[in-house]
Amino acid sequence: MHTMEDLFTDTLKDIYFAEKQLVKTLRKLSKKAAAPDLQKAFAHHQEETETHVERLEQVFGLIGQRSHGKRCEAIIGIIEEGEAILEEADDPAVRDAGIIAAAQAAEHYEIARYGTLVEWAKLLGHTEAANILTQTLAEEKKADATLTKIAERGVNRAADRAA
Amino acid sequence: MHTMEDLFTDTLKDIYFAEKQLVKTLRKLSKKAAAPDLQKAFAHHQEETETHVERLEQVFGLIGQRSHGKRCEAIIGIIEEGEAILEEADDPAVRDAGIIAAAQAAEHYEIARYGTLVEWAKLLGHTEAANILTQTLAEEKKADATLTKIAERGVNRAADRAA
Repeated sequence: MHTMEDLFTDTLKDIYFAEKQLVKTLRKLSKKAAAPDLQKAFAHHQEETETHVERLEQVFGLIGQRSHGKRCEAIIGIIEEGEAILEEADDPAVRDAGIIAAAQAAEHYEIARYGTLVEWAKLLGHTEAANILTQTLAEEKKADATLTKIAERGVNRAADRAA
Repeated sequence: MHTMEDLFTDTLKDIYFAEKQLVKTLRKLSKKAAAPDLQKAFAHHQEETETHVERLEQVFGLIGQRSHGKRCEAIIGIIEEGEAILEEADDPAVRDAGIIAAAQAAEHYEIARYGTLVEWAKLLGHTEAANILTQTLAEEKKADATLTKIAERGVNRAADRAA
């Protein structure tokens, strides 16, 4: 890894792997969530995440690279923590609160990565790539805000009642 | 894990483990960073992180629990990605840009966790704990913003020149 271009490509590979993992995880979460609005939010974000994968493929194309993932231990760790909650939390409302928290950790990982990638793309003169990555960054922030609203609205209070 | 109290305690243990790991990592980063302002930012945040560990111990005390960490695979993954950059990036400016990105991924993990913990503490009536956790959340957000500024100010441009 010698140049900023190398670092940019390496980080693209990291988030490409992460997004592909998250498509599968979000599909699972949309089935396992108890609250209907949470099921719907996960299903919607799963569709968005499929678009994020396609956008990353566009960005690889724009910089003349083949789309390629690189194993990302961070997202694997976050997904494992979410899986543990699915297994360990027996109350549906507690489980919903826990999987929202895990999903928000994943969103924040992506917000950090896309924030960095947008800045680097601009710096390296990859203007079209920067625009594409900015769209995804905005959607990740919105997904995080939606989860906060759902948690505030009902899931957390329901979990509290069950306590 | 049956109740929201269980989930709250479990997440406290997760971030307690993560903060203790980050004290060590930030010490290392403050020595390995090339840019003096980045060295200083890491050293400052390492001191803050020691305070975050102490605050978590206070929160454990407030809820009548012993301070105890739980292995957090997410932060281990993020730290490993940072270590890989330290090893692989031979240009100092590229290395600085890479370790800033890794540190911001860690900050975002913490922002997600503390955001959740503050909400749950309020919900569960742990008002003093919520206040303590809110202080740390604000410092994590500030640390993230500081790293963005340093990246914008010079490190990224320097890395670009070296490309």
